Amino acid sequence: MDWKHGGDWAGFEREYGAPPLDFSANVSPLGAPEGVKAALRDAAGRVDRYPDPFCRALRDALAERENVPAGQIVCGNGAADLIYRIVWALRPRRALAAAPTFSEYGAALRTAGCTVVSYPLKRENEFRLGADFLEFITPETDAVFLCEPNNPTGLTTPRPLLLKILERCRNSGTWLIADECFNDFLDEPEEHSLRPWLTEFPNLLILKAFTKLYAMAGVRLGYVLSQDESLPDALREAGPPWNVSTLAQAAGAAALRETAYVRRLRRLIQAERPRLLEGLRQLGLEVIPGEANYLLFQSQRPLVSPLRERGILLRSCANYEGLDETWYRTVVRTHEENQRLLTALKEVFL
Amino acid sequence: MDWKHGGDWAGFEREYGAPPLDFSANVSPLGAPEGVKAALRDAAGRVDRYPDPFCRALRDALAERENVPAGQIVCGNGAADLIYRIVWALRPRRALAAAPTFSEYGAALRTAGCTVVSYPLKRENEFRLGADFLEFITPETDAVFLCEPNNPTGLTTPRPLLLKILERCRNSGTWLIADECFNDFLDEPEEHSLRPWLTEFPNLLILKAFTKLYAMAGVRLGYVLSQDESLPDALREAGPPWNVSTLAQAAGAAALRETAYVRRLRRLIQAERPRLLEGLRQLGLEVIPGEANYLLFQSQRPLVSPLRERGILLRSCANYEGLDETWYRTVVRTHEENQRLLTALKEVFL
Repeated sequence: MDWKHGGDWAGFEREYGAPPLDFSANVSPLGAPEGVKAALRDAAGRVDRYPDPFCRALRDALAERENVPAGQIVCGNGAADLIYRIVWALRPRRALAAAPTFSEYGAALRTAGCTVVSYPLKRENEFRLGADFLEFITPETDAVFLCEPNNPTGLTTPRPLLLKILERCRNSGTWLIADECFNDFLDEPEEHSLRPWLTEFPNLLILKAFTKLYAMAGVRLGYVLSQDESLPDALREAGPPWNVSTLAQAAGAAALRETAYVRRLRRLIQAERPRLLEGLRQLGLEVIPGEANYLLFQSQRPLVSPLRERGILLRSCANYEGLDETWYRTVVRTHEENQRLLTALKEVFL
Repeated sequence: MDWKHGGDWAGFEREYGAPPLDFSANVSPLGAPEGVKAALRDAAGRVDRYPDPFCRALRDALAERENVPAGQIVCGNGAADLIYRIVWALRPRRALAAAPTFSEYGAALRTAGCTVVSYPLKRENEFRLGADFLEFITPETDAVFLCEPNNPTGLTTPRPLLLKILERCRNSGTWLIADECFNDFLDEPEEHSLRPWLTEFPNLLILKAFTKLYAMAGVRLGYVLSQDESLPDALREAGPPWNVSTLAQAAGAAALRETAYVRRLRRLIQAERPRLLEGLRQLGLEVIPGEANYLLFQSQRPLVSPLRERGILLRSCANYEGLDETWYRTVVRTHEENQRLLTALKEVFL
């Protein structure tokens, strides 16, 4: 039972008999909004029926929010479910992704026998995507997975380069899957999303999740936007039916009404991200200046075990291609919680 | 948006503005047990954390119930999720299934490019599996999917033949996937389950679901039992991580404590199945003597639309391989509800 992600609080609880303070999962620290919890409790009374296989009500609500027709939206059992469906529906033989990035692109692509080409992000460029990424996109490239902002770096690519990538993909007959799951944590999400280009680029898929923004990781809910008309049916048929539970559909529709929660969360992250970054730097750590709700940093001293003993889960980035065991990723939590992390780190470095 | 299963109450509600009486989904008519609903409401407060990716607590509870080590159990987002994972993990090139049977075996197998060989169940044998099924299992057969009791017929295969199939599979190097999702609705479940043979046959996989027995279709939860040591990791890696939500894990653990509910449900089905069968026959319909919580029957007159107009969903079996538009499947519900179905049918046949 090997686990390659963060957030395994259950493993911690088994070992220590109490829950950890979890800095390893990139989730909102505010807990799920009250409206979402109320919707879940209410939906508990309706679970005897199969979920709506087409998520009609949720897609209607999303269509209004995203300003795209409901027919262009496909929901999934978390973004991870959709990554696998995209791969199984499109069946790329050759795909391109940066390294380091979210490992499930490669994991999904390999289940379909796809050759995964890695574009190495370089430490000396703060792991930023360079213009030479364009040269990696050739007519042989069937799909490009791009995580914006990238996980685990938290960095975005400037829009002019993104648009060049998008055009290059269209000219090469290449699907571009833009994973914008952390877009909402950016200071100016609209400035970074490729959504305005959906209509112009039928080769563009945008992936989003409720998981992180609404602290709904335990519910599982994500969605894909695309202009391609045959894609929705293809995605539904690329995996098991009824993949989005009745509970997830109800929670999602409720979450979309939580605009005050999102404003509060965004203010918190905007205030705390620079403080946490500064606190880590004051400990002498190299920190990548991430723009989302998590920070990638380097420590020559091992941190996971000593923090675990202090009740804190931290994500080692040793298993990210392009990183090694000196790299760690921390989520940004509340001020008090971030201080607990910094205090614990200080103890380790004493 | 083509739908090939039952239970699309949401489509009905969109059309008629009110929920249907659903005879199209093979689910317990008693609603989810109170303990399950309470567990779901309670879990709503913990959804900010990712689900335990290994479903540790639920698997412990299942291990006790099924009397197998927790390490031999893999949970999934409904049985459908597990069917796809089994196919993606085992990668059969040639597989065998009866026809008619649950269509997701074929759907999943085809996503992996597998050749699906159909064993035709014959009307003159009441669609029962014959001893000639054995001849269909050859060293070229990588996997056999067997639905016991079969869906949509509700019939079981005598144990001596089942054991011959199991042995023939072992001798041919063939996986046998026994889908026992409806086993608990039989009058004597233990007499029909292949579970006692798990230890002896490492080529055996048993698939089970919470969906139907505990009226948890909206939650999505199923599991696989197998003796094969490498299978659990392979199944987990064959699809997206975090596939079983926090809510499903909590609901499943609670459901296993609902022994009184199961007794009550089983008594209801045992009492109502023969009454509904007799009622259908009195209308002049040919009914297959199913042993589970649903009945397959034939009507020369179209039934779906006229029943729909009367607020009732019925499952047409036109899209089952080996059946045609004259076949229908009805679930067994409460006495009063079954009477409503029979009354509506009488009106149609007047």
